[in-house]
Amino acid sequence: MDRDELAGWLRLALTPQVGRGAARRLLAAFGLPGRIFDADAAALRDSVSQAQVQALQAEPPGLTDQVEATWQWLAQGEDRRVLTLANADYPQALLHTEDPPLLVFAMGQALCAPGPLIWPEGIAIVGSRNPTPQGALNARRFARSFAQAGWCVVSGMALGIDAAAHEGALEAGTADHGHTPPRLLTLAVVGTGLDRVYPPQHAALAGRIAERGLVLSEYLLGTPPLAENFPRRNRILSALARGTLVVEAAMQSGSLITARLAAEQGREVFAIPGSIHAPQSRGCHALIKQGVKLVETAQDVLDELPLAAAPTPGPTPDPSPPPAVTAGAPDDPLLQALGHDPVTLDALCARTGLDTASVLARLLALELEGSVARLPGGLYQRIARA
Amino acid sequence: MDRDELAGWLRLALTPQVGRGAARRLLAAFGLPGRIFDADAAALRDSVSQAQVQALQAEPPGLTDQVEATWQWLAQGEDRRVLTLANADYPQALLHTEDPPLLVFAMGQALCAPGPLIWPEGIAIVGSRNPTPQGALNARRFARSFAQAGWCVVSGMALGIDAAAHEGALEAGTADHGHTPPRLLTLAVVGTGLDRVYPPQHAALAGRIAERGLVLSEYLLGTPPLAENFPRRNRILSALARGTLVVEAAMQSGSLITARLAAEQGREVFAIPGSIHAPQSRGCHALIKQGVKLVETAQDVLDELPLAAAPTPGPTPDPSPPPAVTAGAPDDPLLQALGHDPVTLDALCARTGLDTASVLARLLALELEGSVARLPGGLYQRIARA
Repeated sequence: MDRDELAGWLRLALTPQVGRGAARRLLAAFGLPGRIFDADAAALRDSVSQAQVQALQAEPPGLTDQVEATWQWLAQGEDRRVLTLANADYPQALLHTEDPPLLVFAMGQALCAPGPLIWPEGIAIVGSRNPTPQGALNARRFARSFAQAGWCVVSGMALGIDAAAHEGALEAGTADHGHTPPRLLTLAVVGTGLDRVYPPQHAALAGRIAERGLVLSEYLLGTPPLAENFPRRNRILSALARGTLVVEAAMQSGSLITARLAAEQGREVFAIPGSIHAPQSRGCHALIKQGVKLVETAQDVLDELPLAAAPTPGPTPDPSPPPAVTAGAPDDPLLQALGHDPVTLDALCARTGLDTASVLARLLALELEGSVARLPGGLYQRIARA
Repeated sequence: MDRDELAGWLRLALTPQVGRGAARRLLAAFGLPGRIFDADAAALRDSVSQAQVQALQAEPPGLTDQVEATWQWLAQGEDRRVLTLANADYPQALLHTEDPPLLVFAMGQALCAPGPLIWPEGIAIVGSRNPTPQGALNARRFARSFAQAGWCVVSGMALGIDAAAHEGALEAGTADHGHTPPRLLTLAVVGTGLDRVYPPQHAALAGRIAERGLVLSEYLLGTPPLAENFPRRNRILSALARGTLVVEAAMQSGSLITARLAAEQGREVFAIPGSIHAPQSRGCHALIKQGVKLVETAQDVLDELPLAAAPTPGPTPDPSPPPAVTAGAPDDPLLQALGHDPVTLDALCARTGLDTASVLARLLALELEGSVARLPGGLYQRIARA
């Protein structure tokens, strides 16, 4: 992405009165942000209100500084990227949610590797910032077991359960030699700009997550910790995981919001029970009363969430078509046959009626074009791009 | 019931090869036992097999002694009765089960009152004979709340959870003046003859139950504690209650049998969750996974079980369980470090940074204060108290 393209995306993100929904309508109508800002008022008026047209035609305050800061931040290393809705590496799991962010800021060693970024299969672990000692230990042990079983642990890098979950996932990496490139053990979805670590005492943890995973944020650089951003952040956290485990949670806590969002996104939700006298277990018990699965062991969770690399694809059907346009001829029969779930070569041959050699040749072309990604376990997956 | 009628019922119960099913068929065909034993073989043959006819025509061994012993037992006071299937006071709740016993032996002051015996609305509380201290306290507190709300607590008078449940129900009676006749606070359904108290250390408890409730058994006098009788006893226990609460239960325990029987009898089943590391909670968690209702408070249970009649007003409805108030400053660092799960001394030293001697001294103080319990295996656990 060159500086102009980055500036276009940041301008779209910063334009007052134009929310993510309006921005996505504009992108659908005009393509990249540059074209939106080149368009005349009459054309824009087809997609947005008059007030929004006026907002789009004025340069938002602070844009120059934001572009400069972001450009400088990107220049600091290969381990940092801004993934736009138009980027092939933008996480599919977010594309399929109701309200995907325009931009995802990402930081981690995995971004230095060549080739497309393979987003891992995730299990989210969330919970109280003030857990019991046993709760924190449970989070760490479950996370380690998930990571050892090949899953990526998604959490929010907050104090308490979140930190314990990241730590547990990273522990699984100590015996994890010979993976090339190393698989992503953990994703931290944070609620501030990636140039700010919050809470500050997690600076070292953030560094270790970036070595064996990714730190992610939808917030522009410089965004401070704002209370209203954390619940919004949770929808990304839950979307990046196939299931969410609540380890300990008080009533009316952010973890219960995450659990609700996960359920709304069609994800599995799990909760660990505890003493009826521990306030930290009340939220988990409330979830279980509502039908959330009680789990006692990491295996209880894994039994409900087979890895997609296994022959059966994930249990969660895509609730809505991706809002982005797919590259390549959309009516390409192989793309049609791919659908949006990981698929084996055999299944593709069966679905298209083509022989293996023909399918492989066409898959390679689509891969080079960026429309298809090759996943571990001999699976192929379509990539949705703007 | 005169001595001849009693002898007829005991003879029917003692006749080898004639089980409860055959006995009920005979009673349905002939009426009272006397008529069965007066009937000729041809008439009996319509209801039972030839072998059973022969068994019915011979006096079973030990009958004379059993009749004498039972007659003597009844003569000891108005507070004891043998309720037969033909008796108006036989509990309706048992009549409607699949396999009602022919006889129910009952003992308690309530039997001295004139007029028909009013069977109370019951909630069963069952659980481990080796509960955690907190589990026993939970049983007692839930039982007290149920009894205060007008319910009768049904249990099995075993060690552990059962005894705590009876005790809790009896506690509700201490402030329960002026009820005429006094309502039944608790029913103990035991697995031995009523002339034997098992376990022997519950002799005093049995006496107190008989003052404010009933001790019940389907087993003839003199029946010793036999392992096979206890699971059978559970079906009576569950049938006498509208719902069954499992407080703590290991896997493969008798409490899980009771829970299954209760569900099969169309009763509600409830379970209290606990630490995923406590073996005594595994059975409860298994039940919850199967769809049994997780409950945190007595009110959770009462909400699902409205009393058929207006509740007998108790003295002071106890909002239960009361918030976990620990003795000692709630911000005591050792109490914080304890959490709500069983913990080793080493873990406490590690969590607090204190040396072993300091932790031990403080633990002893908390133990004497009643805030901490010492568990087998060198574990300590915080106790939440009313």
